[in-house]
Amino acid sequence: MTRVGADWETLRWEVDDDGVATLTLHRPDALNAFDLTMARELEQVFLDAARDDDVRAVVVTGAGRAFCAGMDLAAEGNVFGLDESVRPTPAGLRAHLTESPYAEGVRDTGGKVTLAIHACPKPVLAAINGAAVGIGATMTLAMDLRLASTRARIGFVFGRLGIVPEAASTWFLPRIVGTAQALEWIYAADVLTAEQALEGRLLRSVHEPDDLLPVARELARSFVVDRSPVALALAKRLVYRNSAAADPLEAHLSDSLAMWWTSVGDGKEGVAAFREKRAPRFAGRASELPEIFD
Amino acid sequence: MTRVGADWETLRWEVDDDGVATLTLHRPDALNAFDLTMARELEQVFLDAARDDDVRAVVVTGAGRAFCAGMDLAAEGNVFGLDESVRPTPAGLRAHLTESPYAEGVRDTGGKVTLAIHACPKPVLAAINGAAVGIGATMTLAMDLRLASTRARIGFVFGRLGIVPEAASTWFLPRIVGTAQALEWIYAADVLTAEQALEGRLLRSVHEPDDLLPVARELARSFVVDRSPVALALAKRLVYRNSAAADPLEAHLSDSLAMWWTSVGDGKEGVAAFREKRAPRFAGRASELPEIFD
Amino acid sequence: MTRVGADWETLRWEVDDDGVATLTLHRPDALNAFDLTMARELEQVFLDAARDDDVRAVVVTGAGRAFCAGMDLAAEGNVFGLDESVRPTPAGLRAHLTESPYAEGVRDTGGKVTLAIHACPKPVLAAINGAAVGIGATMTLAMDLRLASTRARIGFVFGRLGIVPEAASTWFLPRIVGTAQALEWIYAADVLTAEQALEGRLLRSVHEPDDLLPVARELARSFVVDRSPVALALAKRLVYRNSAAADPLEAHLSDSLAMWWTSVGDGKEGVAAFREKRAPRFAGRASELPEIFD
Repeated sequence: MTRVGADWETLRWEVDDDGVATLTLHRPDALNAFDLTMARELEQVFLDAARDDDVRAVVVTGAGRAFCAGMDLAAEGNVFGLDESVRPTPAGLRAHLTESPYAEGVRDTGGKVTLAIHACPKPVLAAINGAAVGIGATMTLAMDLRLASTRARIGFVFGRLGIVPEAASTWFLPRIVGTAQALEWIYAADVLTAEQALEGRLLRSVHEPDDLLPVARELARSFVVDRSPVALALAKRLVYRNSAAADPLEAHLSDSLAMWWTSVGDGKEGVAAFREKRAPRFAGRASELPEIFD
Repeated sequence: MTRVGADWETLRWEVDDDGVATLTLHRPDALNAFDLTMARELEQVFLDAARDDDVRAVVVTGAGRAFCAGMDLAAEGNVFGLDESVRPTPAGLRAHLTESPYAEGVRDTGGKVTLAIHACPKPVLAAINGAAVGIGATMTLAMDLRLASTRARIGFVFGRLGIVPEAASTWFLPRIVGTAQALEWIYAADVLTAEQALEGRLLRSVHEPDDLLPVARELARSFVVDRSPVALALAKRLVYRNSAAADPLEAHLSDSLAMWWTSVGDGKEGVAAFREKRAPRFAGRASELPEIFD
Repeated sequence: MTRVGADWETLRWEVDDDGVATLTLHRPDALNAFDLTMARELEQVFLDAARDDDVRAVVVTGAGRAFCAGMDLAAEGNVFGLDESVRPTPAGLRAHLTESPYAEGVRDTGGKVTLAIHACPKPVLAAINGAAVGIGATMTLAMDLRLASTRARIGFVFGRLGIVPEAASTWFLPRIVGTAQALEWIYAADVLTAEQALEGRLLRSVHEPDDLLPVARELARSFVVDRSPVALALAKRLVYRNSAAADPLEAHLSDSLAMWWTSVGDGKEGVAAFREKRAPRFAGRASELPEIFD
């Protein structure tokens, strides 16, 4: 039995009884190409629907034969939606980050989506069922793990269009595969097979097409059933934040706080259940997390 | 011939003639479970005994069939030793980091141990002979290299207890295996076989049980015999610090200083010995390091 | 047809019609050992000749049977060229970074070269044809990719000389192979075979000796032909800078600016060419990059 969320124009959103949501990019006639509607809807899903405490993990896939064929270059108008009159500067963007119209005219659309994915305090898994090109590839980098079908094709093809890899991908990709592999793929701007992407450690695993979504959902389920949503959310934040921290002392400060709050919270139930050899019943909510970073 | 250090309740400490210390977690009847005594003794070993200039490298292993089965959940009282009345904040912990009782009531016990391991200016190798679970797994991440027996089992199982990975592990683990592999293991909260941990690049190598400790000691010996303790200590600091530095200019500043001080110190002897095709006789001491970071 | 640049004492520099430069370390009788002349010339090549807009990528290799056998320990005088009277401090070096004679007496020579390589806004590939030892190994870490011949031998041998890995290598190496592999190689101070370096992910690929340079040049060519020099340069900067950024928001700020400037620049031509199924004719120049970092 699945619960189906609000209607979306470019997406499908279903949550099963274990809290595993399946988010389907759903413009199959356009190979799920990314347009401004999809961008807005994706950001909204991750900032809103996926934050519901009934949602424990999110699996993202594509309808039909593609995952996401990239920015919809067939769309009308300025394809990247940017205001050409702004002449932006680093200081200007930082100062006006949340202000329209400056920010609207400058901020990368894909980046708004990946920041929303990154901020989602739950495991997010990509189930890459077919072509994932441009933003279709970079959006998966902000997801925690990437599984793929043997039919997946992954392309960081920006170089061929005269543009740069976006969506904060240059933050995520080196942390997954290292700087040398990241640069080679970006320079080459080729479309990788699933096997190549696996060998380069971009993918966790490759599956027969019919197996991909069931395996991804089962993996997501295994991450969350009988787990504390608070502990999961804090662990995700700790890994990303401390991957970039200057010194292990920073990690010690933040994980001390996370340990303190979980120890006086869901950790009590977890240890009790472990001692009593029973499944835990965690009461914590990912929507109510303690502050662990200053 | 080995020199045996002070008596410890939960540890054994031996230093051989080449300066290779073997530190054995020694509560074999409890699978070397980590309790507050072991925590205090481990911190003391790395801040004190291991700093002795006669110690050149440290190999850490476990007595009996386990490496360390994790936090001793059978211990009496508040298992994590935390003060539930504190309600800590990031700013509060940072301000009172070295002050009791605030810090004592909040700081993660495992993190005090791993910060001490990290600060030890010598190669530290884990020889994981059996189960390494929870803090038994995370304490090895602050060691420079991990060798394991075919019998090793490694578990980042925090998620099953409603708590988070601690001991600054979210700083170390992504630097060893990348963010995606780190998150998968933390989410899964499973116990990995040695083979799985090797494939994921957590381990340097896997050995037959009887070979593990001899191989680890021989590797440690190969790192330090005829080497400058000062150069080794500075190299260790450079790698960890610069792995997190914002710009290669930071590495250039610190390695310039390290090169300057070693060039006018042990480097003279090293180059002379190289030219004269003889073993060097280094006079530098790891207990007297120049400042290379501001 | 190749254009040959200014005469150099220790280098050869050729640029082919596609803009692929081949930089050859050229002291074959000394196994291309690195001396102060080579250091000065390498820095100059990357800060000057390689910045020419006609140069699109650089392949670095060695003349004869070695790539670079390391610092020329047979040279006269203070081998590292340092002023022993300075007694430098972190604050002192930072304050006088660009001032002689303090900086001249302290700054690591290899680091000046690798900072120049790093700052070069084009793909730089190492084609390691033989022994690459000491600075011969570390200089390749600032290059984006490393290809090698089956005859390559790579040694981070500093530990045997009583000195530390330099040339900002502790910034680059952990980003390529992780901290644990970096530390093992530095501690071991051994000379790796090409196969070992490949297995440890230092190398992209290993080739028969006669194939190495043609493959490296062809790979470099594939990165730049029909590509925007501006987009390539910005992508390189984004990857390195954001590999060390504290938060993906930083990447979002910088890649938004890079996307904005390329979208109103070469991106228009790239998208038009894609739609018209023709090769693009990019007008942008790597010598005129927009500011994307504050």
